[in-house]
This record gives sequence, C-alpha cells and structure tokens, in this order.
Amino acid sequence: MRELPVIAIDAMGGDLGPPVIVPAVADFLRADEGAAVLLVGRGEDLDPLLKRYIRGGSERLDVVEASQVVSMDEPPADALRKKKDSSMRVAVNLIREHRAHACVSAGNTGALMATARYVLKTLPGIDRPAIMSAIPSRGGHTHMLDLGANAHCTPQQLAQFAVMGTVVAADVHGLASPRVGLLNIGTEEIKGNETIRLAGQLLARSELNYVGFVEGHDIMSGRVDVVVTDGFTGNIALKTMEGVARMLFETAREEIQRSWVSRLGAVAAAPLFRAIRDRVDPRRYNGASLVGLNGIVIKSHGGADSMAFANAIRTALVEVRKGVPTQIGDLLKRQTILERAV
Amino acid sequence: MRELPVIAIDAMGGDLGPPVIVPAVADFLRADEGAAVLLVGRGEDLDPLLKRYIRGGSERLDVVEASQVVSMDEPPADALRKKKDSSMRVAVNLIREHRAHACVSAGNTGALMATARYVLKTLPGIDRPAIMSAIPSRGGHTHMLDLGANAHCTPQQLAQFAVMGTVVAADVHGLASPRVGLLNIGTEEIKGNETIRLAGQLLARSELNYVGFVEGHDIMSGRVDVVVTDGFTGNIALKTMEGVARMLFETAREEIQRSWVSRLGAVAAAPLFRAIRDRVDPRRYNGASLVGLNGIVIKSHGGADSMAFANAIRTALVEVRKGVPTQIGDLLKRQTILERAV
Repeated sequence: MRELPVIAIDAMGGDLGPPVIVPAVADFLRADEGAAVLLVGRGEDLDPLLKRYIRGGSERLDVVEASQVVSMDEPPADALRKKKDSSMRVAVNLIREHRAHACVSAGNTGALMATARYVLKTLPGIDRPAIMSAIPSRGGHTHMLDLGANAHCTPQQLAQFAVMGTVVAADVHGLASPRVGLLNIGTEEIKGNETIRLAGQLLARSELNYVGFVEGHDIMSGRVDVVVTDGFTGNIALKTMEGVARMLFETAREEIQRSWVSRLGAVAAAPLFRAIRDRVDPRRYNGASLVGLNGIVIKSHGGADSMAFANAIRTALVEVRKGVPTQIGDLLKRQTILERAV
Repeated sequence: MRELPVIAIDAMGGDLGPPVIVPAVADFLRADEGAAVLLVGRGEDLDPLLKRYIRGGSERLDVVEASQVVSMDEPPADALRKKKDSSMRVAVNLIREHRAHACVSAGNTGALMATARYVLKTLPGIDRPAIMSAIPSRGGHTHMLDLGANAHCTPQQLAQFAVMGTVVAADVHGLASPRVGLLNIGTEEIKGNETIRLAGQLLARSELNYVGFVEGHDIMSGRVDVVVTDGFTGNIALKTMEGVARMLFETAREEIQRSWVSRLGAVAAAPLFRAIRDRVDPRRYNGASLVGLNGIVIKSHGGADSMAFANAIRTALVEVRKGVPTQIGDLLKRQTILERAV
C-alpha cells in the first residue's frame, strides 16, 4: 500500500455523510487500480456500510478512527478549537504526517479551509489559499478562482491565483499555455477598481499567458482557460450560474407538464434533454481544489451524490500524480516580476 | 400632444440605430394610444425610415434634430464635452426642458449615465444613480441594482438602492411590500465585507421589507423581489447569467445537429423549446432604469431588436405614469433612519 498514492477521505462530511461516501469509495477503488484510500470517521458508522459495499474488504482501504464530526454550519473557529479529533481534522493531519498524499472532504467549506491552512500552511510566496473549480464552458471548461475563500484580495494575491490556475490548467488538464483572464466589468464608465487594474499590470509583466480583462459571460465563452477574481465576486458568479441552470431546467419541467402536446414533445426529445444536461452536469465538475497549500485538499459539494463524490476523489488523485503544490511553487519562483512587485 | 406623456427617444443610439429604432417607435405608437414620442437624431437618416414605417406620419410623433452621434465605445467624458448636440444629449435635455417626461437610449451606457447625471442631477438624498433591471426568476422576476454604474458603493448608497428598488417593484410592478435582499456570499468563513454588513444593519432598521443576505442563486429563486448589490458584482452577475443561458441554448443547438434521432426529437420538442426560451427571453426584459435621477432615463440593450426596443419604451411610459422619481424621493424622506446614519 505504501507505494501507491494514498487519498485520505473525510467519511463523515457533507449533507449525507457515509451512506454517500462509502459507495463512492467502493466505486473509486473498483475503477482506479492505482490508488489507496484511508477512510476517516467513526468505525461504528462505517463498518456496516463497508460490509455492504466492499465485501471481503480491500487491500487498498484502511479505516482511520476519528471520534468527532464537524457540522455543516459550525463556525470554522469552533471546528478548529473544539474538534481536534474530527474526521475532517484527522484526514488533513494524515497529509502532514505523510500518511496520505491528498485529502477529500464534503464538509463545511469554511472549516475545511481553516483546518487546512492551520495544519498544512500555505506554500512559500502564497499569501492565501483559494478555492478553484472547473466550470463547464463552450468546448470544454474554464478554471475559476477564488470561489469564496477570500472576500478581499490584493493585486498580488490575484496574481498568485493566476499562477495557481495556470498550473492546474496546464498540468492537470494538459493545456500548453493556459490563457488567463481577470474578471472585470466591461463597457461601463469606471472599468473595475484600482485592485484589478494593478493586478492586470502585474500579470501583463509576468510570464503567464495573460489575455486581459474578461467579463461575466466569458466564464463560459471559452475565451480563456483560467478566470481570476476575488472570492466575493467568484462565489456570487458561481452561485448565479447554478441558479440560472436550475431555473432553466425547472422551467423546462413546468413547460413539459403544461399540455399533452408538450409532454409528447418531451418524450421525443428526452435523449436530447439528457445530452444537454450531461454536458453541464455539476456532478461531473465536482471537486474544488483548495490551492496554495502545502498539500492537496479537495472540497466536494456538500450535497454530492456517490457519482459526484467519486469524481472529487479522482480530482485528488490527478493532482497527486501531477504534484500540483510543487508545480505551483516552481512556477511562482519563476515569476520574479510578481515577487518584486510585492 | 401636450397632455399626453412624451417619451424622448435617442434614435441614433445602439449597435444598429435608426433601422431598429424607427420600426420600434412605429410599433409602440400603434399599440399604445396614450403616449407621444419625440424622435431625436439626424433628419436625413430618419426621414426615409419614417416614410417607410409610419406612412402619413403620426400626430403623436415629432422629430427633434441633433447633428451628432455618441459612438458605442466613446469615453463618457468625451461624449459630455465634445458631443453637446448628440442625439443622446438632446434627448436627455428634453426632460430638463420639460418637453419630455422620459428618455430612452440604446447608446453607450457610460456616456448615457454621465450625461443624465450632468443634465438632470440626482434626487435629494441620493448620492449616485444606479442601473436597475428586471431579471427573470421562478414565478416572475426580480429587480436587481446596481448593474454597473458604481464599482464601489458605501453602505448608505446600497441602502439608497434598496429604496429605489422597492419603489419600482411596488409602484411599477404592483407588489404590496417588496422583499429586499442584499447580495452576499453565504456559507464561507468570511461572510462578505464591512460595507455589506453595515448596509444590512441600516436596512434592518429601515421601514423597508428587508429579508437579509441572499446568495447568487437567489437572484432567480423568487425568494426576494429586489436584489441590492454594488455595480461591480451586479454587472458580473448579470453577464454571467447571460453567458449561462447562451451556453445552454448553444449546447442544445449542437446536440440537435449531432444525429438524425436528435434532429427528430428537436422537431417534436420545438414548441417546448420555444416556450422555455420565451420565458427567459432577454428581449422581454429589455429596458434598464437609470434610477436616482431627477427624471426617467431608460437604457435599452445596445444590440436590442425592434421588439426589445419597443419594450424599453413601454418601461419608460410605465415609469412616467407612476411618477417613479417622485415616489423614490417620498420613500427616501420617510427613511429617517437612513438619513441619520449617513
């Protein structure tokens, strides 16, 4: 087991916890031969599920006991102080103890970020970690960060995000020279603010493939591979996207129920609707990276089902194989312009 | 003509100008008996179109000559200084001269905002005007502001936006007690920033129906009637929405072309697709209000077609009939808490 990449999994996190996570782990182990899992949580909750989903056990799976659970609405400071034996904390600790190469949790985002920063620390040259995720776009996907960890960002932090996004887009997704855009407002009188203008100047002088300011619709237009923004704007843009997609699909459902003609049309078009939904299915994009840390931490959506959670584990495995934190450190060292500007 | 509401229309603005605007005016005049139009622009460009679309002329239409045109990418300061006889400037002037009750332009947003502020000034108690629009939501629509006029806002400005949104939702759209939400990030460690927290405190003590913080997906969820945010976040959220909708419809188009089965499905489901698209058709929602001014100024989308531009004219007419600027002034005077807090 020691030579394989090892993924520590917070088995108690998320809205549904073990009943979703154990089958996801079982699927992952069946599909991916080249990795092992440390499942962290309360044995009493996990054992019956393990017996059911992984009959006869697996050589590539061990359970690590953790007595506490961080609740989904627990203040991060409380989780950090009072839940030192939580499944989340123990899973992150396993990285620092070199027993795991990455960790995946569907738990409380704020608590996970606080725990990961406290236990793992940030990479040299990175002020603050960020939350990054792939977003479906025309012809593929875009990587966007920060999605909510830092409400305020300095120009230097935004430039650091651009470095992190470039590494993930290049190394994990195989793009030769990822195009980076800074999210801004476009045609209006005051184009953005001082922070964004300064970040743009830093990026223009860096070695990154910086293409300039982009607007909200460019997140999905395929114009860039990496969209950089602060955590306030990024979080609102992400949730706005989810809201639009949900409203359109609900509108479709309502329209289908409206008459027998539309119900008939919907039956005929069912494969088409499925194909459209699959292309933008958030479960396919599950697994946000907490980038900028001394270690790989992947946040699954709290409401993820087993298929989605298994995708988050796969994201962790890819980042382990590519050595994302090391790559970020290396690329950052080469951006002497960014360092000088700090 | 003097007793009817008079709408001044910048006939030269927008990506397409008179060929789109003149037929829209013709449609508007045919459909709405109770309003007159002053069409502002170059007679030589307008006359052939007027002859074609409004045969024999109309008693409720006059042309006001303006020799210049503000281009779509002209810096607002240049438009203000060098284009004193532009169709946009002359149309806004008509309000100040009490020759028109409102003005509609599809031109350069920044230039229109700068011109309107310069010519009309803001209402007493309003620091800065904002751009507000209706956004399709589950079961109806939401009013969102600011959509891009003010990249930075103080807590007091956000509270003033809430007053303006409440008036438009109540008076123009007939809601008894519009629910107001402040756009913020949700479950993350740092919930928003000091500005938003202070704005929330102001609104909680006001007479408005303030329901608290809302997230990106609530713009469309129907949870609130008015969403208040700064112009940076609002502009990005708006353009993100447009981008998602566009991507989903383009994905649908691509999937339809993929095979004869899906083409057949699409034919069967065509009325269904049309119904869905109609419910979220941005042309139905065309006509953003520049609220907070001593006068009614409506901004049409630059790429609006005639149907969409006619909707923007209708929005102007409704605001005239309801006396929106007066209502905003009255409601603002009653929010003594907001005044004291400034």
